[in-house]
Amino acid sequence: MSAGPGTPTRPVSTDAATLVTAVEAALEEFFVTRREYVDELGPVFVTAAEALRDFVLRGGKRTRPAFAWTGWLGAGGDPTGPEAPAVLQACSALELVQACALVHDDIIDSSRTRRGFPTVHVDFERRHRERGWGGDSAHFGTSVAILIGDLALAWADDMVAAARLDPAAYARFAPVWAGMRTEVMGGQLLDIHGEAGADDSVEAALRINRYKTAAYTIERPLHLGAALADADPDLIAAYREFGTDIGIAFQLRDDLLGVFGDPAITGKPSGDDLREGKRTVLIAEALRHADADDPAAAKLLRASLGTNLSVDEVIDLRALITDLGAVDDVEQRITDLTDRGLSALESSSASPEAKRRLHAMAVAATKRVA
Amino acid sequence: MSAGPGTPTRPVSTDAATLVTAVEAALEEFFVTRREYVDELGPVFVTAAEALRDFVLRGGKRTRPAFAWTGWLGAGGDPTGPEAPAVLQACSALELVQACALVHDDIIDSSRTRRGFPTVHVDFERRHRERGWGGDSAHFGTSVAILIGDLALAWADDMVAAARLDPAAYARFAPVWAGMRTEVMGGQLLDIHGEAGADDSVEAALRINRYKTAAYTIERPLHLGAALADADPDLIAAYREFGTDIGIAFQLRDDLLGVFGDPAITGKPSGDDLREGKRTVLIAEALRHADADDPAAAKLLRASLGTNLSVDEVIDLRALITDLGAVDDVEQRITDLTDRGLSALESSSASPEAKRRLHAMAVAATKRVA
Repeated sequence: MSAGPGTPTRPVSTDAATLVTAVEAALEEFFVTRREYVDELGPVFVTAAEALRDFVLRGGKRTRPAFAWTGWLGAGGDPTGPEAPAVLQACSALELVQACALVHDDIIDSSRTRRGFPTVHVDFERRHRERGWGGDSAHFGTSVAILIGDLALAWADDMVAAARLDPAAYARFAPVWAGMRTEVMGGQLLDIHGEAGADDSVEAALRINRYKTAAYTIERPLHLGAALADADPDLIAAYREFGTDIGIAFQLRDDLLGVFGDPAITGKPSGDDLREGKRTVLIAEALRHADADDPAAAKLLRASLGTNLSVDEVIDLRALITDLGAVDDVEQRITDLTDRGLSALESSSASPEAKRRLHAMAVAATKRVA
Repeated sequence: MSAGPGTPTRPVSTDAATLVTAVEAALEEFFVTRREYVDELGPVFVTAAEALRDFVLRGGKRTRPAFAWTGWLGAGGDPTGPEAPAVLQACSALELVQACALVHDDIIDSSRTRRGFPTVHVDFERRHRERGWGGDSAHFGTSVAILIGDLALAWADDMVAAARLDPAAYARFAPVWAGMRTEVMGGQLLDIHGEAGADDSVEAALRINRYKTAAYTIERPLHLGAALADADPDLIAAYREFGTDIGIAFQLRDDLLGVFGDPAITGKPSGDDLREGKRTVLIAEALRHADADDPAAAKLLRASLGTNLSVDEVIDLRALITDLGAVDDVEQRITDLTDRGLSALESSSASPEAKRRLHAMAVAATKRVA
């Protein structure tokens, strides 16, 4: 078979610091290959595709490709070998799954900005209004953003297909990729049911955390890299243990920052998670303690979450959550999970260099302040 | 490589009449293979996946798989050969792309029912309200439907991957599959821009028609089948000519039915397209004539489209559109396109049996009354 327009040819650097650049170059190159499809559909579609490209290339830590790539390296992948460019392209396609998740999540959460820019639905709402087009501007913005998210999801698969992985590697990759995409959508479904108040238990919050974040951000990317490298089952199991533990700890840290973080560092308004009524493990632990020991506190918490709280009310709720012991509980969980995840990593057969990198990524994910 | 859980094993009937049953069996079987992923995420996700399954299996003509399968047969595919089950599975995955398109389209069009059932977003809006959950029921329904549509789109690719096509066949299939998914989303983007009034020319309406319907419903499915059978370029070109022409004619027939169809037969309220303000070729032709010859009629048309018209107003608009010559124009286009498409088919190297079937499908698509 011939090398198609999407087949990557660039040699891949082994340097971790340049990985972000390499991922962005792979994405940029993929967007170039879409032009033949996009141009044919005319200027309206060109504009939409450019909005997606800008969204994807505007920034982000490229966390998922980094875990996938490092997982591949750690399982014996050779960054100077002939298969490295295809592996890099397949790993980079995770950013397009993430683009779909974020664009659709911003509709679901009614978010107006992301990374300092208007969200996609708000951007197209504004374009509609400025051009004086017919119909409801907000509905138009939402409609365009649904379709742009769909495009990102379809293109994620197209980017994997265009990588032309070795067929045996692709056959190992596909079921993990399938699991990951199903899990992240499942996790988001659990999340919106959680916010609707269907279940406010610690178990429900942990399940959302596991599928919406841990599996999707760390466990499955590592698993994808391991599958591409044809890792043995023991290493895959160790990666998945590490990924699940560190992924959950990462989200628990995020939950703490969402309530206690410094707005000057996190870039989000203080106590935002309380106003949004997010059903995090932190909140579930607070409710569990309150239900057991302090019914008035439980009532206050349930009545306050998801409402337009004043700064003083946020301060009071923070104190309440802390006094109930929920912060200590969550910090303890983070410590336990991090220890267990790092220990699974250390005793695995991953390469020393990958262990070093993954250790550093785990610490950065669980001890961060923003 | 081992046969995964999704690998189809059933022998495939050659009988056109049983194709719908075979497609539905392939879909049913695929949904069974998703259970391992779905059950692990718990009851909320099980419910959502069941809603998707019900939606996909509830009905539909399976038009796209039928064109893909017939395209494969006509290019030499052997329905009794060892590759037939994988081909059938890959063709059937088109129904999951279609499920995403319909579920998301129903949000975009604010449709309340489909095939006599509540649309997915309305269904979940109702469940939210009945359970007395927190937050806005309509927003919850939309959010769930966005995610269920995403799931359908991801599962479409997973169903193709699980079919385990021969790697060379998959390499031919993938770029056509990519083109089709990009085109249908592009077509929908053009459509909503059209309804917003960005461009009401005949050319713009034809372009929407071409990408939203023709390419996606007939041209690309045939192309997919041809690619799987490794058809020669001449046959692919003939299929694409036939598919584009018949696909556009099919949508032009639909446009006429949307304004003049008998509600007792079409199942849609009479004149629904006028109330929705759909920018069809029929409407664009009417506007073109009116702009040239009758400015008052043009003004009336533009002011009326997309408003809550009474039955009498619909009757008056129908007469106006007919008097302007738009119906004759569209009928002439349908005749010309059908003739050209059928002639491309007849002079192609497709097998006589496939020609016979495709001819019948073309006539059914362009002469129908519902």
